[in-house]
Amino acid sequence: MEPGSDLGLGDSPLHRYLDGEFWSLKNELRRVLGGCPLFRHRYDLSLDEMRALTFQRVTFTMGLPLLKRAIQEQAEKTKNFISRSLVIGEVLSTADMATGVKCGIIYWLFGGAIRNLGSPGHVTKWLQPLQEQKYSGMFAMTERGHGSNVRGIQTEATFDLSAQEFVINTPCENAEKMYIGNAMYGNYAAVFAQLIINGRSQGPHCFIVPVRDEDGNLYPGVTAIDMMYKEGLHGVDNGILIFDKVRIPRENLLDKFGSVTPEGQYHSRIKNKSARFNAMLAALTPSRLAVTFQAMGAMKLGLTIAIRYSHSRRQFGPKAKEEVKIIEHQTQTLRLMPHLATALALTFASRYAGVLLDEDVFHGKELVDSRPLQALVAGLKAYSTWENIRCLQDCRECTGGMGYMMENRISGLKCDTDVFVTFEGDNVVLLQVVVRELLAQYTKQYEERPITSLLQSWAESGGDKLRTSFLAFNMDTVGNLTFLLKAVNFRERVLQRSLVARIYYKVMTKKEDFFSAWNSCLHHVASLSLAHIHRGCLPTVMTLPSPSMEPLLCPRATQRAGSCHFFNVHNLTKPAEETEAGRGEQLPKTPYR
Amino acid sequence: MEPGSDLGLGDSPLHRYLDGEFWSLKNELRRVLGGCPLFRHRYDLSLDEMRALTFQRVTFTMGLPLLKRAIQEQAEKTKNFISRSLVIGEVLSTADMATGVKCGIIYWLFGGAIRNLGSPGHVTKWLQPLQEQKYSGMFAMTERGHGSNVRGIQTEATFDLSAQEFVINTPCENAEKMYIGNAMYGNYAAVFAQLIINGRSQGPHCFIVPVRDEDGNLYPGVTAIDMMYKEGLHGVDNGILIFDKVRIPRENLLDKFGSVTPEGQYHSRIKNKSARFNAMLAALTPSRLAVTFQAMGAMKLGLTIAIRYSHSRRQFGPKAKEEVKIIEHQTQTLRLMPHLATALALTFASRYAGVLLDEDVFHGKELVDSRPLQALVAGLKAYSTWENIRCLQDCRECTGGMGYMMENRISGLKCDTDVFVTFEGDNVVLLQVVVRELLAQYTKQYEERPITSLLQSWAESGGDKLRTSFLAFNMDTVGNLTFLLKAVNFRERVLQRSLVARIYYKVMTKKEDFFSAWNSCLHHVASLSLAHIHRGCLPTVMTLPSPSMEPLLCPRATQRAGSCHFFNVHNLTKPAEETEAGRGEQLPKTPYR
Repeated sequence: MEPGSDLGLGDSPLHRYLDGEFWSLKNELRRVLGGCPLFRHRYDLSLDEMRALTFQRVTFTMGLPLLKRAIQEQAEKTKNFISRSLVIGEVLSTADMATGVKCGIIYWLFGGAIRNLGSPGHVTKWLQPLQEQKYSGMFAMTERGHGSNVRGIQTEATFDLSAQEFVINTPCENAEKMYIGNAMYGNYAAVFAQLIINGRSQGPHCFIVPVRDEDGNLYPGVTAIDMMYKEGLHGVDNGILIFDKVRIPRENLLDKFGSVTPEGQYHSRIKNKSARFNAMLAALTPSRLAVTFQAMGAMKLGLTIAIRYSHSRRQFGPKAKEEVKIIEHQTQTLRLMPHLATALALTFASRYAGVLLDEDVFHGKELVDSRPLQALVAGLKAYSTWENIRCLQDCRECTGGMGYMMENRISGLKCDTDVFVTFEGDNVVLLQVVVRELLAQYTKQYEERPITSLLQSWAESGGDKLRTSFLAFNMDTVGNLTFLLKAVNFRERVLQRSLVARIYYKVMTKKEDFFSAWNSCLHHVASLSLAHIHRGCLPTVMTLPSPSMEPLLCPRATQRAGSCHFFNVHNLTKPAEETEAGRGEQLPKTPYR
Repeated sequence: MEPGSDLGLGDSPLHRYLDGEFWSLKNELRRVLGGCPLFRHRYDLSLDEMRALTFQRVTFTMGLPLLKRAIQEQAEKTKNFISRSLVIGEVLSTADMATGVKCGIIYWLFGGAIRNLGSPGHVTKWLQPLQEQKYSGMFAMTERGHGSNVRGIQTEATFDLSAQEFVINTPCENAEKMYIGNAMYGNYAAVFAQLIINGRSQGPHCFIVPVRDEDGNLYPGVTAIDMMYKEGLHGVDNGILIFDKVRIPRENLLDKFGSVTPEGQYHSRIKNKSARFNAMLAALTPSRLAVTFQAMGAMKLGLTIAIRYSHSRRQFGPKAKEEVKIIEHQTQTLRLMPHLATALALTFASRYAGVLLDEDVFHGKELVDSRPLQALVAGLKAYSTWENIRCLQDCRECTGGMGYMMENRISGLKCDTDVFVTFEGDNVVLLQVVVRELLAQYTKQYEERPITSLLQSWAESGGDKLRTSFLAFNMDTVGNLTFLLKAVNFRERVLQRSLVARIYYKVMTKKEDFFSAWNSCLHHVASLSLAHIHRGCLPTVMTLPSPSMEPLLCPRATQRAGSCHFFNVHNLTKPAEETEAGRGEQLPKTPYR
């Protein structure tokens, strides 16, 4: 298949509607990449050749005026720059996932660290040459010993007062920076390390550390080990970075959240070490949402291929008659259509999350103060990347042997995006982020009432449950979207109340420590988290107007459809019982309200 | 990791118990392959190099005395030769999946076609040189237009009386043989084609067709097109075969089920064309079970890697204490342990299916007459290969970034075995095979009663359902294996009765044609089929004695544990209501009995 032909080019009302506000930007990029021979799919290259090709693709892409503009907008924090970058990432990933991921590493992660953790001076010094491709960067947070629990990283940045330098050091094997993308090509790394002054750590901070010069010679004290072969993303060079007392100037500390004076005094407006690191992580939220957009790109591409094939391939049929199209086999439809619905729901939900991020940034709000939004992005990342794996797996199976051939793209997408479920935050860990936020909201809501009354109200909720079960027997009701929203709302509420009750019992009555109480409820936590995200995504389906009924010719209408009335972040992250259930009548009051 | 170290070598009572009767054979093969430098894992090779290495591996393996003996046993149909071959296939696949699959193509599929569809003369002429690796073979059934519905293949074998030859021809693009393994290396193909005499087709038959000579020159009229890059199994050369009036001697028809005299007279002891093709397909049942063994090998290897890693890796923990092993995170255990249990259940269930096949063959029974056994093997193939995909996916995710690196094997196993769910019978189609057999049994059971009484009894089954639901509230009962068996039994029964009622209503009352009635129940069919296989596999867990309590030193004991009391093929394929539920009390009589 020629590049471009499967990139979803088109400008019908439906195309515009599904692509949202930036449909024309997406089409422009699709047209450029689709017509570029560099983006012909190659499966015949060695690892080195594939990496070299990806390097060329990244260089070509980032040299496009369209991309330069986007990067400039990022630096200037122009209105809606996040949403625009997100859709660019989505389109880029459908052209070639490795290129999308590598651009993400250089411009979202490395570039994002400078923009969001650095001072205006850092932005001026480092971003301009990055945009001009004078050098490229990498993002070095994960260590061998600490992937999910990044708070525990062991790389050290010790301040040397006399030299006015930080000494970046890897004290042990577990402190080696691992899985670092662009480690075999890149020039500078944004390295997270414990900032140590006078023998005392101020918690993890981010530093710009030189890795190799433009001729590829490693900087003294730096070792880069190639991690070689992965399941997919062959074009992305992942490696291990080891620092042996590497000296960098004091100015290379990205000091928005914490700085060191020439006299060796540490300053930060956030006194608590943990809160400070949270603020840094929060600032990186947009790059997590970028993964969701990349996963959606893969999903929609896989579905397009599988659904088209299912409408052309015939197999089995009534006796002595022509075989039927395989989409007409009930199982084929039932396997593919729910994924299509989910992909659409995720499209609108994650687009809306992008809008919210843009609004916060535009109003100068620190992302750490938007905890519900962080939880939403964490939940969307987990849900979308898991859904992507399941979706592409079904696409692969529904296309039989054809789906196993690389040239038909589905299996390649599967291998490339498999890592999404564990990178940028392991999904199981992200689900916990969502629930911690939910419980924080829940606690706030009940802070004036003794928690025992919760248990009481929970025990009384049986009647509510039966009413819902009874409704479910009515087929009309089951097919009604308002009822469905009530049902998922109900599910979330039950899971939430019972989780609170369990943890309360374990911690308060049984005197278990919080970690083990939480851990023994982890399956419950994961279920609640997914129930919460499902409830958040469902309304996006409910607000879809039929594009054939109402052609979306005016941009305002597109915008209205692209966001959605019911899906707002306050609903999403407030406990379920506070949420309006849908267009229809209110939920019956639960006994404890 | 060195080869062999992850192959499960060991001879403790537990090892022997889990490996079953042929544990020592398996260990012998593990030792040989583990010590062979040829089996070091390679990820740095081009497609051609990988195929060449796989060719070497196949040659080495098939030259081993142990393997030669097994192949000889296959030819002689020595007692238990199927079970022995199955475990050899399992071990081979854990060393290298592509080698396992390629050996399977040459010796199980091509060799199996000769053994099971040919005459004793064919066996003498073709098998001996195959065993001596004088040539290699391939199996050409699937066509571009017909993969699942192989009955509809369009390749033609027209008898030319004057030349005493068959003319093998590909009349159209849809008749091209596709995905043929060993197509770029092999010398002869077992080709399925419509046998045409005097312009009339006698249905699909199998023919030995030369593809290329030992120097690699294609036989006149044969075209082989390389299908190149796949998601996995890079060592297996899949290709497209096209025949342009290729002439083969009359004797190359494998004529066990249908022969042609020199005078051009067609003879078969099975008069019905469809029944005749069924008999041929049935004879190939053991190769379908071989896929289950290969999937189990992959699953157990993936689980070993993931569970070991989970016991060494630490992440998160109680405040100010050491981080805990990730296996102690509740979600990690809950994700991995059910797969381990399923892998064990499948080990015993499929081992038992192998024993049954061996018994049938030993007693000279045609496999077409063991329809329940065919259904069992079809169901096990579908269940095991899907479970394998899910299991390896969880193993990959539970090992984080490590699981994404090829050197840690899980992602390679995932890519290699992904095709198992659609080859050797698409899983969705196989589920239908199971249910057709179940319904045939059901019909037999009720043939003396009008089917309307079934509907009546189905409507009356509400009481039974409530009793089960009520029991489920008791936690002790839920944890009780006998109860669980009752529950899965109940689920199957409900699904079966309701399916019969639905189809009956559609066909008899609404006068729908059978195809569309069946198709509109396909999701129901798939659910029933899986419920049936689950019910068949569960008892294998119930019969596991504790190996530490009862060391399995005597071979009889091993045999007893390897098979199982409750799991017999008659239970498995009889409708659920006829099955004894477990060791405990009888199921409450349903109203209609």
